[in-house]
Amino acid sequence: MTGCIFCKIINGDLPCAKIFEDERVVSFLDINPIHVGHALVVPKRHYATLFEIPEDDLLACGTVFRRIAAAVYKATNASGLNLLQNNHRAAGQVIDHIHFHLIPRFRGDVFLGPWPGKPCPQQELDKMLDKIRAVL
Amino acid sequence: MTGCIFCKIINGDLPCAKIFEDERVVSFLDINPIHVGHALVVPKRHYATLFEIPEDDLLACGTVFRRIAAAVYKATNASGLNLLQNNHRAAGQVIDHIHFHLIPRFRGDVFLGPWPGKPCPQQELDKMLDKIRAVL
Repeated sequence: MTGCIFCKIINGDLPCAKIFEDERVVSFLDINPIHVGHALVVPKRHYATLFEIPEDDLLACGTVFRRIAAAVYKATNASGLNLLQNNHRAAGQVIDHIHFHLIPRFRGDVFLGPWPGKPCPQQELDKMLDKIRAVL
Repeated sequence: MTGCIFCKIINGDLPCAKIFEDERVVSFLDINPIHVGHALVVPKRHYATLFEIPEDDLLACGTVFRRIAAAVYKATNASGLNLLQNNHRAAGQVIDHIHFHLIPRFRGDVFLGPWPGKPCPQQELDKMLDKIRAVL
């Protein structure tokens, strides 16, 4: 898509530190990493989010991110790793071409911070369950 | 696996607010949600992390999380959504049975906070690229 920085990288119009490439997917290092080794896995075709990508390209990304995650974890000698995929600005998406972050983590680093989940009354869960099932 | 809370849910020994189930995968609401509607997608077979799950079960999860993400996003009327999968304690993993978080997001909420990525010198990226490629 014109103006998309990831499409430019994929087309070879911008450079990247490329880890891997196949017919459908490319993986390269994030130039603004949370930790060095932070990699991205990106489908070559342009889709904005998880809500637009068709199943075949998503699964091609899955095959690749599983493999790249293992290599990043090993190469960085990390203690953990997050797979993160942000959809829309409210979720932190900056580039509107779907991408999967693979973020190596180290004990005591501060990304994500304390997990903010809180117990939810059963009645509220049940009500939400009905809503989700209705649109599934 | 004995003692695994997700295996107990999958075996029917513990209740859950179940959204979806097929032969390989189950999805239910997180009982400690970041926002109500926060769902989990879990393979039925026990694997600790992304480093242990075989490709077929991972892709089965991918098919399901794509579908559940769309339903959660719609049912919660969210402005965004994060797919997040944590591996090992350093990355925030609490239950040692791989699971994918689908977290609906709303403008101005505080989960994740400001993105902490920072520019990285090209030389450092290139050095890391060599390390990752060597173990790919």
